[in-house]
Amino acid sequence: MKAAPGGARPCDFVLRGAAELATMSGADGCGLLTGGALAAREGRIAWIGPERDLNRCVAVAGDAIVVDAEGAAVLPGFVDPHTHAVFAGSRAVEYGERLAGRTYTDILAGGGGIKATVRATRAATAEQLAALTRRRLDSFLLHGTTTLEIKSGYGLTLADEHKMLAAAAVEHPLRRVRTFLGAHAVPDEFAGRADDYVELICREMLPALRSEAEFVDVFCDIGAFTVEQSRRVLLAARRLGYGLKIHADELALSGGARLAADVGCVSADHLVHATWEEIAALQQAAVVAVALPGTSFTLGAAYAPARAFLEAGLVLALATDFNPGTSYCENMQMVVALACQEMHLAPEEALRAATLGAAAAIGRQDEVGSLEVGKRCDLLVLDADTHSELQYHWGVNLVRGVVVDGRVVVSDGSVVDSQVGDAA
Amino acid sequence: MKAAPGGARPCDFVLRGAAELATMSGADGCGLLTGGALAAREGRIAWIGPERDLNRCVAVAGDAIVVDAEGAAVLPGFVDPHTHAVFAGSRAVEYGERLAGRTYTDILAGGGGIKATVRATRAATAEQLAALTRRRLDSFLLHGTTTLEIKSGYGLTLADEHKMLAAAAVEHPLRRVRTFLGAHAVPDEFAGRADDYVELICREMLPALRSEAEFVDVFCDIGAFTVEQSRRVLLAARRLGYGLKIHADELALSGGARLAADVGCVSADHLVHATWEEIAALQQAAVVAVALPGTSFTLGAAYAPARAFLEAGLVLALATDFNPGTSYCENMQMVVALACQEMHLAPEEALRAATLGAAAAIGRQDEVGSLEVGKRCDLLVLDADTHSELQYHWGVNLVRGVVVDGRVVVSDGSVVDSQVGDAA
Repeated sequence: MKAAPGGARPCDFVLRGAAELATMSGADGCGLLTGGALAAREGRIAWIGPERDLNRCVAVAGDAIVVDAEGAAVLPGFVDPHTHAVFAGSRAVEYGERLAGRTYTDILAGGGGIKATVRATRAATAEQLAALTRRRLDSFLLHGTTTLEIKSGYGLTLADEHKMLAAAAVEHPLRRVRTFLGAHAVPDEFAGRADDYVELICREMLPALRSEAEFVDVFCDIGAFTVEQSRRVLLAARRLGYGLKIHADELALSGGARLAADVGCVSADHLVHATWEEIAALQQAAVVAVALPGTSFTLGAAYAPARAFLEAGLVLALATDFNPGTSYCENMQMVVALACQEMHLAPEEALRAATLGAAAAIGRQDEVGSLEVGKRCDLLVLDADTHSELQYHWGVNLVRGVVVDGRVVVSDGSVVDSQVGDAA
Repeated sequence: MKAAPGGARPCDFVLRGAAELATMSGADGCGLLTGGALAAREGRIAWIGPERDLNRCVAVAGDAIVVDAEGAAVLPGFVDPHTHAVFAGSRAVEYGERLAGRTYTDILAGGGGIKATVRATRAATAEQLAALTRRRLDSFLLHGTTTLEIKSGYGLTLADEHKMLAAAAVEHPLRRVRTFLGAHAVPDEFAGRADDYVELICREMLPALRSEAEFVDVFCDIGAFTVEQSRRVLLAARRLGYGLKIHADELALSGGARLAADVGCVSADHLVHATWEEIAALQQAAVVAVALPGTSFTLGAAYAPARAFLEAGLVLALATDFNPGTSYCENMQMVVALACQEMHLAPEEALRAATLGAAAAIGRQDEVGSLEVGKRCDLLVLDADTHSELQYHWGVNLVRGVVVDGRVVVSDGSVVDSQVGDAA
């Protein structure tokens, strides 16, 4: 065994045999490294370069995990920066009704829509919610997501929001970032008293949940919270040290993107109706634009102007918006394909938005989202020899292996969560 | 053990524990049987009814295969009646070029497109082609397709078309129906002499391949074969006893649907540009309309007017059109979701088109496509308790188990191809 340079411990993880590494390093494109290899130490990438240099440059522990990609393409793990992955109940019947022409307003008036999910989520025990969530995390991981943002927002009481955030932290190899979304909807018990609910969020919920969520999000749109209500929540959250996010300009041009720029949100999400003025404001304030093509697909609605975001120099992120009403899909590969087909992104632009751009949307661009020295060793081995198969061969799962923190957690399409890495 | 009625042998397969069976029996809808069970003998369904009646009504062999659906929904296996599943090479790079605005005509002129697939397929050995095909059949099966039509058409010489049809018959539990599509494109060596190539098809290929293909298909459209050339091929095929199919009115309203009605095709496929006149002609001649939403999705093109087909009383089928250029997706669940989202089908209409309608498109409606006594015991156990999850929870694989001919061939997401059923 070679001595590690500078007295560092030898590497405990090696990836070799890849046709290519799509590193996402550099200012744009995929940072493609043909015939590249990678080594990691204690969960972080320690070396990356041509495989022929591996033995010469890197000291590897005798009991290191060695992943042979067997000629496959390798990507950074997907980062999914906008999900509502904790909920109970199903809205499959409502989906059929919507296809048959029933409006969401009508469904909501009948006690369906988000109200149905709030009822089911409140009724679920903490254990039930954790079990449902763990199953979903398995599916996210199997499809290649290694870092996942999860929002609360179907509890809408302090206790139920707490229950959701606890379920979001259920033990699982998938890395998570938690967001408090108390301002997702006005709960029935506050019907007609939205300001009182906003007051409850600001006075009680935000301080109480500070240790459980890193971000605070607000649904600022027609039928949800006004710009002024949203501003109140976001400013209160900012005073407490939360990072800020916002559901902005999804249903109408309703002021959310402007507010995001005003208060300094890390990301503004949806942005279907954003015009050049909103885009310029986001660009000035360095707010990441999160596009959610799965939601547009499900609702048969317009897609966010993602090409315009890129042309304006915004950092673009893609996310599933996984939720039981308007985007029941945990597969970021499908989101990437939709972004290419429906938002006219180039394959490399979409992949970058689903990894490095997505990491920026949750303030993790220095930790995850690319294969670079110092970052977390989170990567995917595809069932393909080029990253461009991901968009081209759609509607299926092309992820064969997944590594999180230098540990193999998916092998041949099954969650394995090998602990070997910890012993190295 | 109960004696089987009428002296028949006892059943060798039982499905129980299902939340519901979507049988597809009856004139429309899903023929939903809540709490239904099913028994089969020698690969065919022998009984279907409420589970509480199972023990009283059915004699079951002691060594029968018993599948417990554990509260899941059960469907007939998907029938995919239009695929080009045998080919070599990848066109991923071309896909990126097309997204960037390069036209298909330009790609073709540069030696890409179908020409690239013909070159790669001709260059592949029979063994290579069979190995590629077997891997794809695994993926079709894992996504719930139990009967698959496969076309030739990337060989375009007698020897290479034969090689493709042989690969299509590679040993695998997935049931296949083979179609000769010599008239897919005019090969380079016949450039400018399309009529001579048609003559070769009619004189040599059709008689030589009679025992290897059940159907003959023609790509009748602008840039492919004219109505007169297509008619010549189809009539020659009809004289030899082939069933007839046609790629019709995909790129333009070019006469294919009318021709299908004239010559008595079993199905007319694509039909993006069909008007009420074409629809009326198809209805008169009882031609099944095959819609291919994955192709429209990939090309960013219009979708076939599937609602109009249903309103006119046509039998509607859905298929993947799986191919390396314009629809690289083997997942019928995704096709069903696209048909709901983009063609505005109700979930039940789309499921029916993907099973019983699809069976009719390959003349198999008496054998497969529904759960009815006498039909093949081909069924899917979902990772969901209702069939309506299939459209609603999209972009993933909700098929947990697959049974073909009363044999378990997929269990927990892996191909197992149990042979136990044969011994019963």
